[in-house]
Amino acid sequence: MELSQIEHLGIATPSLEAAIPYYENVLGLKCYAIEEVADQKVKTAFFKIGEVKLELLEPTCPESTIAKFIEKNGGRGGIHHIAFKTKDVAAALADAESKGVVLIDKAPRGGAEGLNIAFLHPKSTQSVLTEICENPNEK
Amino acid sequence: MELSQIEHLGIATPSLEAAIPYYENVLGLKCYAIEEVADQKVKTAFFKIGEVKLELLEPTCPESTIAKFIEKNGGRGGIHHIAFKTKDVAAALADAESKGVVLIDKAPRGGAEGLNIAFLHPKSTQSVLTEICENPNEK
Repeated sequence: MELSQIEHLGIATPSLEAAIPYYENVLGLKCYAIEEVADQKVKTAFFKIGEVKLELLEPTCPESTIAKFIEKNGGRGGIHHIAFKTKDVAAALADAESKGVVLIDKAPRGGAEGLNIAFLHPKSTQSVLTEICENPNEK
Repeated sequence: MELSQIEHLGIATPSLEAAIPYYENVLGLKCYAIEEVADQKVKTAFFKIGEVKLELLEPTCPESTIAKFIEKNGGRGGIHHIAFKTKDVAAALADAESKGVVLIDKAPRGGAEGLNIAFLHPKSTQSVLTEICENPNEK
């Protein structure tokens, strides 16, 4: 597949309220958006550094996959996934599947910030949960 | 502190030999260097995507912190740390310490690729192991 850059890093956190001051006051970054993504059961806060976004993810209910990630991690947050940017998610998925990669999403779906996204299964990605995304406004 | 970009992501792996073909053949990236960093007890493989490097880390002995990370992670790899680029690591450390951040490295030390690096303690960084680095050739 053809990937141009890291679009964002997804970072799980038990509390945006606790995490945002660290990113702003210690790292010197600026939270430019807060958005709830209902179907992923998360509230997100966005920062940008260079060409990459940091997407903090707080679970909105115990059934959220982010809540389960935090629980498995001893109640702590951590880097949850890496998202690569491509021009055509559907083509990237077809290419990955042809090489034996197990797909979590068989087709692109809507994600935060209006992107089209799909996840690859970590058992096929060297244990790194991997998202592929495209910006439909750049097509 | 003033951070300009993500310099690299450190990704632990039990086996570079198994991981490199995934990054090359599935993600379409190119391994441009392999380097052993003796004092960190790792062998590293480097890729670049956009402005960010991916640094795969394979432990060279069981006492390596990367070996312990993999062991805690059920024998699997995963994203181990995030490294931010700054112009002055010593100034960034002083600034972080003044804000109550616990430092793993009190002063910059040599890392892979000739960078000067220092780690902040994850208990002060919202559980994300965080490295700050500078390129002395750009000073």
